[in-house]
Amino acid sequence: MNERILARELGEHIGEQVLIRGWLHKKRLLGGLNFLSVRDRSGLTQLLVEDKAEIEKLRGMQIGTVLRVEGTVVADERAPFGAELHEVTLGVESPVTDEPPIEIDKNIDHRSENLDTLFDNRVLNIRNLNEQKIFKIRAAMTQYLREWLTEREFIEIDTPKLLGAATEGGAEVFELDYFGKTATLAQSPQFYKQIMVGAFERVFELNHAYRAEPSATTRHTTELTMLDVEIGFVKDHAEVRQIIGEMVSDVLRKTYNKFAAELGSLQAPELKLADKIPEFTIAEIHELYTKKTGTDTTAEKDLTPDEEKFICEHARKNLGSDLVFATDFPVEAAKFYHKIDAEKGVVYWADLLYRGLEVATCPLRENNYDKMIEQMQKAGLDTNHIGYKYYLQAFKYGLPIHGGCGFGVDRFVKQTIGLANVKEAMLFPRDINRLTP
Amino acid sequence: MNERILARELGEHIGEQVLIRGWLHKKRLLGGLNFLSVRDRSGLTQLLVEDKAEIEKLRGMQIGTVLRVEGTVVADERAPFGAELHEVTLGVESPVTDEPPIEIDKNIDHRSENLDTLFDNRVLNIRNLNEQKIFKIRAAMTQYLREWLTEREFIEIDTPKLLGAATEGGAEVFELDYFGKTATLAQSPQFYKQIMVGAFERVFELNHAYRAEPSATTRHTTELTMLDVEIGFVKDHAEVRQIIGEMVSDVLRKTYNKFAAELGSLQAPELKLADKIPEFTIAEIHELYTKKTGTDTTAEKDLTPDEEKFICEHARKNLGSDLVFATDFPVEAAKFYHKIDAEKGVVYWADLLYRGLEVATCPLRENNYDKMIEQMQKAGLDTNHIGYKYYLQAFKYGLPIHGGCGFGVDRFVKQTIGLANVKEAMLFPRDINRLTP
Repeated sequence: MNERILARELGEHIGEQVLIRGWLHKKRLLGGLNFLSVRDRSGLTQLLVEDKAEIEKLRGMQIGTVLRVEGTVVADERAPFGAELHEVTLGVESPVTDEPPIEIDKNIDHRSENLDTLFDNRVLNIRNLNEQKIFKIRAAMTQYLREWLTEREFIEIDTPKLLGAATEGGAEVFELDYFGKTATLAQSPQFYKQIMVGAFERVFELNHAYRAEPSATTRHTTELTMLDVEIGFVKDHAEVRQIIGEMVSDVLRKTYNKFAAELGSLQAPELKLADKIPEFTIAEIHELYTKKTGTDTTAEKDLTPDEEKFICEHARKNLGSDLVFATDFPVEAAKFYHKIDAEKGVVYWADLLYRGLEVATCPLRENNYDKMIEQMQKAGLDTNHIGYKYYLQAFKYGLPIHGGCGFGVDRFVKQTIGLANVKEAMLFPRDINRLTP
Repeated sequence: MNERILARELGEHIGEQVLIRGWLHKKRLLGGLNFLSVRDRSGLTQLLVEDKAEIEKLRGMQIGTVLRVEGTVVADERAPFGAELHEVTLGVESPVTDEPPIEIDKNIDHRSENLDTLFDNRVLNIRNLNEQKIFKIRAAMTQYLREWLTEREFIEIDTPKLLGAATEGGAEVFELDYFGKTATLAQSPQFYKQIMVGAFERVFELNHAYRAEPSATTRHTTELTMLDVEIGFVKDHAEVRQIIGEMVSDVLRKTYNKFAAELGSLQAPELKLADKIPEFTIAEIHELYTKKTGTDTTAEKDLTPDEEKFICEHARKNLGSDLVFATDFPVEAAKFYHKIDAEKGVVYWADLLYRGLEVATCPLRENNYDKMIEQMQKAGLDTNHIGYKYYLQAFKYGLPIHGGCGFGVDRFVKQTIGLANVKEAMLFPRDINRLTP
């Protein structure tokens, strides 16, 4: 009996002798009647141990012990996959001699868990079947994002995270010694993706970005996973919002479809998507918020975290949408690479908010070389800095109108599942205090 | 006429008025008869310009100028997509005033090109249609790898590249200041993927790795893209080789199928795959090589680059295989985490060679906690170092037998296309001398 079957296949083998392999997950020793469960990647198998010699083996056997078990499959509706194993013979593939410091079977409460406890025990708590769902959903969501873009002729690019010295001072840049020179870690692949619009028109990269972020919030980490998308030859900014909005909506629909049971058991909120993502200008949001709360935000350049929550609650309740575009950022908020709507006196820039949190910035870029130089000089930048040399070359020799998004994958997962902190959507998050595990 | 069509769609619109948008790619001004080609992401459109006012617009118009062109589609078998545009009206979307420093239309000769010239001009030479094929093939190959693994229940994990202080001194580790502490950049996600075997059994990560590699060879860079795979509950080392071998073979077959034309025009070698990947032990290869060349390599721990080429040429010629497994590394080559075949006195470790170059190492890991501690102590490692704490926890609380591979994606692309240097398979490679573009 050489071929292992998985827990979920048990129901197809009623009455047969089978081999399973997995971890001892739980023990209930009730004298003569001893139940074990064994975990494999598909779930749990319940075993009934009655034989004396086999019961003897259980003495001191610790949770986590890697077992190979032969036994007879017996139908049982109460068992995880409609069957359990009887008349088992237990073999130890890898012994465990100490009791684990946490109870693997106990689900993590992501609304109250202490984060240090969570990550100090990550190696073991990821063996919890409920906890695993978060990362199966995460893996699927990145897969769906990639598929959505690839199907629409976006080329995935792979650009370096080791860069030369920073162009702007920027306190939030990690620096390292690079054979006697100074290198920095990329905060985003923005320059590269814009350069690549000049070749492929439509590109994306899903990779890490680094921010020497000294604050410890529920939304920030020092190493994050970003989806960067850039689209050339759009008609206007509305087309950028439309494409990004469709991508996010389609991926959410697919995720909720495929992982309905998992999202349910993780107590994720119900998904609400309207036919079109509601749009509010920054000025409108300030006005609505000020009227509602009495706190005057009309002079702010950006939305406050509280305003993001406010407008999303409004949209979910009154417009049936978990997604909101906040549009028309004031020109005072513009970076040198943004495209300005001179007529309306605003930036072609929208933030995508999802259940109260900004998950993506979706701007249109200035693509005219002379305008670009002008905007850089106005911003006090040295257009001859080596860090701009290749970037500006792309503009000088012809870039079409383009826009896209920088999209926070960790935040996207956090908001979908309804986790309290973005770090809970990551296996091994990094912040000012944490470089381990 | 608002909806743009792409060059490749031209043939479906014979006789119609259409709009195309793209870059001025080539000009041939022959007096009254003026031909232009315009590039978009799908290829080239040929335009015939006869109207005097339109010819006037061409004066001084530089390659790279972003154009929107309206015109009538006329069938022409010699044109790229079976049709060209006549009676055109040219509109400039984004002007270019200087002549580009390189000829975009001229293909790069990857067997003779100077690499500094190649990368100093990367922003523009990636606009060359032949050059783009390398990176379209690369994007597809990573997609196929991910798909292959996902279809077989491997979970893609996403682990940090910012780590704590190095566990072994290791000259090849990049260090950086992390809020007053020392952090290092990950050389591989090996510890994390082994830890995750304890949860998901089968995992992979396709992401960057960092090596402070001071040598400038045709095979090394400081930032590389690796596919890391790890498989729990294998039967033996042969199963690891079988799974990795099938993955690589299937992905190559699919790539050669989908990109036959592109690989042809890039002069990629013909693909040769045998029913089973030929296997030679390290000792056998040393012996064959020594006999053939007279240079005695029988005392070497590893294969020399020359031996890798030798055995691959042998396999391609005599066994019809571009892939070779070099197996049974001597125990002197073992790292502390390798599993030793005590009976044969070798390591359960194979290298996958592809057309003369090692592209993957495929070992079996020691999974027994006590054995692991013993091997670490024997290697002179401090088992109490914080860098081993979480790693060892995974073993202590039960890890099944497992193995996998560290697979060089850049090398895989290089060897498939037949490029001279691994850097030519990368958009923006990094080495001791190069941090730009």
